[in-house]
Amino acid sequence: PIYPINPKVDEFDGMKFYPSVRDVPGPVDHVISSIPSGGVLQLMDDCVAKGVRSVHFFTAGFRETGDAERAELEQQVLAKARAGGVRIVGPNCMGLYVPESRLSFGDDFPMRPGPVAFISQSGLNAEEVVRYAPLRGVYFSKVVSIGNAVDLNESDFLEYGAEDPDTQIIAAYLEGIKDGPRFRRVLSKASDAKPVVIVKGGATGAGTRAANSHTGSLAGSFAVWSGLVRQANVVAVKTLEELDDAVVAFRFLGPISGPGVAIIGVGGGVSVLAADAAERAGLPVPPIPDDLQSELREFIPIAGSSVRNPIDTHALHDHAQFLKLCGVLSRAPEIHSLIAIARIDWAFVRPNADINQFLAQTVKSLVEGQREAGRPLAVALTAPAKPDVMDAMLRFQTMAADAGLAVYPTVQRALEAIALVWPWHRERAERGLPAWRMPLEFVASK
Amino acid sequence: PIYPINPKVDEFDGMKFYPSVRDVPGPVDHVISSIPSGGVLQLMDDCVAKGVRSVHFFTAGFRETGDAERAELEQQVLAKARAGGVRIVGPNCMGLYVPESRLSFGDDFPMRPGPVAFISQSGLNAEEVVRYAPLRGVYFSKVVSIGNAVDLNESDFLEYGAEDPDTQIIAAYLEGIKDGPRFRRVLSKASDAKPVVIVKGGATGAGTRAANSHTGSLAGSFAVWSGLVRQANVVAVKTLEELDDAVVAFRFLGPISGPGVAIIGVGGGVSVLAADAAERAGLPVPPIPDDLQSELREFIPIAGSSVRNPIDTHALHDHAQFLKLCGVLSRAPEIHSLIAIARIDWAFVRPNADINQFLAQTVKSLVEGQREAGRPLAVALTAPAKPDVMDAMLRFQTMAADAGLAVYPTVQRALEAIALVWPWHRERAERGLPAWRMPLEFVASK
Repeated sequence: PIYPINPKVDEFDGMKFYPSVRDVPGPVDHVISSIPSGGVLQLMDDCVAKGVRSVHFFTAGFRETGDAERAELEQQVLAKARAGGVRIVGPNCMGLYVPESRLSFGDDFPMRPGPVAFISQSGLNAEEVVRYAPLRGVYFSKVVSIGNAVDLNESDFLEYGAEDPDTQIIAAYLEGIKDGPRFRRVLSKASDAKPVVIVKGGATGAGTRAANSHTGSLAGSFAVWSGLVRQANVVAVKTLEELDDAVVAFRFLGPISGPGVAIIGVGGGVSVLAADAAERAGLPVPPIPDDLQSELREFIPIAGSSVRNPIDTHALHDHAQFLKLCGVLSRAPEIHSLIAIARIDWAFVRPNADINQFLAQTVKSLVEGQREAGRPLAVALTAPAKPDVMDAMLRFQTMAADAGLAVYPTVQRALEAIALVWPWHRERAERGLPAWRMPLEFVASK
Repeated sequence: PIYPINPKVDEFDGMKFYPSVRDVPGPVDHVISSIPSGGVLQLMDDCVAKGVRSVHFFTAGFRETGDAERAELEQQVLAKARAGGVRIVGPNCMGLYVPESRLSFGDDFPMRPGPVAFISQSGLNAEEVVRYAPLRGVYFSKVVSIGNAVDLNESDFLEYGAEDPDTQIIAAYLEGIKDGPRFRRVLSKASDAKPVVIVKGGATGAGTRAANSHTGSLAGSFAVWSGLVRQANVVAVKTLEELDDAVVAFRFLGPISGPGVAIIGVGGGVSVLAADAAERAGLPVPPIPDDLQSELREFIPIAGSSVRNPIDTHALHDHAQFLKLCGVLSRAPEIHSLIAIARIDWAFVRPNADINQFLAQTVKSLVEGQREAGRPLAVALTAPAKPDVMDAMLRFQTMAADAGLAVYPTVQRALEAIALVWPWHRERAERGLPAWRMPLEFVASK
């Protein structure tokens, strides 16, 4: 049950209110505080008296202000919590989103759980990730916005994520680290168990100054951070978009055995820029061997197409041709993954086209093509120019993710995601760790 | 008038058809050919006999196939054209989009003209740019997809753009250059006159191989290209998105006098990542001087905000406060441009909010804030998560562009655009060239 607490309200919206935590009739496990900071010491006394296990302080106005008195108040709250056996989330944070327990800090967050944990030193960044990742089929086990982390900190939540059977991938936005040696131990342990993807805020001088204003944390040297990340084989990313992209790759692509990509799409200029983007991302685009090119030429017409790699063809919209193409690519030894560019907007070119049928057929071809190729296949979209195209694209993403496909908004982002995750698999093998893949119960059955 | 030619059709859709170009009653200036390549020699004879000035061959199946006979056919067409005084656009290309003359190769292209010329060695890339740039207020004087460029080539169109009074900014997608020394001369002349932004397809080994399959052009050494670009002070970009972003900056931001940016937005973590992105893009985020920070603190509350830079505040949604903020920033000597993060999605948080009024008020605050700051102000959006938010965002972009604002899809892209264009202005000054700005007749009057 949920017990609303407010000394000035008896009842509202059909819910009975209690004047204080002490007055609640049943046991209380977890308290969410959004009172002003002036009342937090009294609240903590009440929680200790009631036997509460944890308190999340949404309440801000502590150490992060840079004010000495407010920093002291934070320490007093911590002292009371330690003495009374209460754990603290925050203060100055959005707290917990645990869809399986229907606990959430956003009223529009999905209640569908998934295998990804996200630990964030920023509430808005957590909201951003929780709002965008599900559009591409990524759902969460636990998300925590840790704020000032006066008690439970990034190491605690990372350790929890490493051991949590509901969590298969851990992602994090971190600005500063409380206890370096402990974090190093926990990070290595977590990364040995499952993929860990981290964006470090404060990677530059300007970012470090901003982080200091934000959570009052000293971001520390980025060189030290980089060493830590390399040592633990963590996937380090620069933006929340890259974080989402790497998580999508771990969530839906199987292990990637090498850097070679085949790019399948339409348009000569598009192919040229995609090949440039691949090489810039550190991924070779090996020419398809001559004998396989000849096989492709048997069913791909010559005018306005190329079968060298990038493979410039409309094949994706011809189911049988696309499966044949993927079958030929399954025998190209230097190709380790495929990227197929899906032009959802082309469903709108023909008047009265059945959009949903176009989307479903495209998903079917991609799923079966991936199987035929025997290699991970990432799907790249192009930016929608109109709301109705965006609507179709969102439906496509949901259908594709439900069918187990990794979808990216652009071919560049698909390439960069592969460039981020494949070295993680390689490094793991080099360290003698077992190959990692998403456990079967999370993989689409189709 | 338009004369449809087809020997097998008399009349269709109310239009009279002619059996050949020779049979057209009036004079013919320009011919668009979409017949198979087998008929092009006869067509060229007809055009010469009729006194046609130019032919655009949409027709493909020439040199780009790698086939010697088809390459020879291309040369025969050229010989006939040269002998008969006819100029050729293409073959293997989409041809011309000239909105002012209502000539277009896409039936959904806008008929509103604008000050940007775009020269493209890829038809699909040209379509991409023509479809996306107008969403942010960028319209075109002339767009040409040049294909194999057997006669008129990139140098001809670049020279035309440099002299064309309707063209104030030139953008191009190029794979290979026909005549290096001439291109070098023309490029320098064009870039001295107006901003030239080029994405070079085939910047890597893989891209060069793809370019060779595409237009049959040998892309040449990227090192030579880079030298050429530096020498001519051309803005070199890596993707079509960067091309759009740089053009938006030239189109709507005035000259930028230095690299220092102030970032105005909401969210501690957002600010940290924005500061990191700025420094990665080569733009310093100078702390606001202490005395100006004190002034800001007089009207920006302390909890959950920062006035150092990034400036973490809700001020954009309080008109008076935003103008005061911009007024203070006008006196920060190290700040040369501003980036304001506009969260259009927040219009949807309050039920029954008047979205259009929210959008209009935001545009008004940004326009007046830019004036108050006395510095170029770029507007950064965040990715829409729903079609209705995208719809509002598109309306916002149109309103903002009509009011003369530069809008970017993310803060990273806004930063990278500023990092691309401000050195162009600096280099121009160092060469003793007059400062460039968009002529007054193209600047919004508001």
